[in-house]
Amino acid sequence: MVLIFTGNGKGKTTAAIGLCIRALGWQKKVCMIQFLKSPDFKSGEIDLLKKMGVELYQTGIGFSWKKTPQQQIESIKYAWELCRKVLLCEKYDIIILDEIINIFCMRTISVANFLNEKDLIAVLQKVKNTTDVVLTGRNASQILIDYADLVTDMKEIKHYYKKGIKAKKGLEY
Amino acid sequence: MVLIFTGNGKGKTTAAIGLCIRALGWQKKVCMIQFLKSPDFKSGEIDLLKKMGVELYQTGIGFSWKKTPQQQIESIKYAWELCRKVLLCEKYDIIILDEIINIFCMRTISVANFLNEKDLIAVLQKVKNTTDVVLTGRNASQILIDYADLVTDMKEIKHYYKKGIKAKKGLEY
Repeated sequence: MVLIFTGNGKGKTTAAIGLCIRALGWQKKVCMIQFLKSPDFKSGEIDLLKKMGVELYQTGIGFSWKKTPQQQIESIKYAWELCRKVLLCEKYDIIILDEIINIFCMRTISVANFLNEKDLIAVLQKVKNTTDVVLTGRNASQILIDYADLVTDMKEIKHYYKKGIKAKKGLEY
Repeated sequence: MVLIFTGNGKGKTTAAIGLCIRALGWQKKVCMIQFLKSPDFKSGEIDLLKKMGVELYQTGIGFSWKKTPQQQIESIKYAWELCRKVLLCEKYDIIILDEIINIFCMRTISVANFLNEKDLIAVLQKVKNTTDVVLTGRNASQILIDYADLVTDMKEIKHYYKKGIKAKKGLEY
């Protein structure tokens, strides 16, 4: 099945991490590929998830405004190639493609030349039917929503960012 | 700070579990009190979270329709007393009160006689200011939303339940 956590509110990646734990509790095999986030980005859960057996890849190249469009494109091409392999390898019970949905609406670079939602769906259709795939990211398009089995829109009602409070260790990262 | 995950969609408890992991990754002390869910309810994450150091209490008494209203009331009173102690003990960095919001809108029993949102807020106001508290459950009322620092409404756009697919091990439990 395909699950989508979308929307502008806090909880998308966090819920995906929660699903990792739930699945690990049943001895399931879990793989998470993070788009955009780079290994330089130290978030509390990363080492712990790896230690518990999640196969985890952070494919991003760090702060995108410091990188050329070509560098960003190469990193997304690399991540997508990795996704294809992971989705089709039949090794995992749950595969999480964190922030992949953000890729389809990036404004600084044009991803559509080499990857769009239809390409993703074409690969999802070939995934072993006992494997569940979780996609996260803002602004899921209707084509993805139509294809998915479960979609939650995580809507920001209020956020302490707006009071000037910065991202907090243990909550945002 | 106080964070609320509300709404009718999948992701509320799952995101709370994700926050546990993120916080544990920074060696923070985490306590989770689950309302309604009983120790009979075997969910994948429970043993794993305990093993990783989360202090976790499942205070529910199982399927409520098999219990008398008095039994339900007693279990909620017990859970609330535990919450008060945990919130005020100054031992934890993150406290998760899972499904507490559901308590305030139960139709089968009248909780309002001994517990309402104002009682909860009165205790939250006394919590040490470096402790973050996460409340989950459907239908958060305006009084709770106004008090919280962050609120995400997790809205169901679609769910495979509606296609007749049952709750799935590793995803729902």
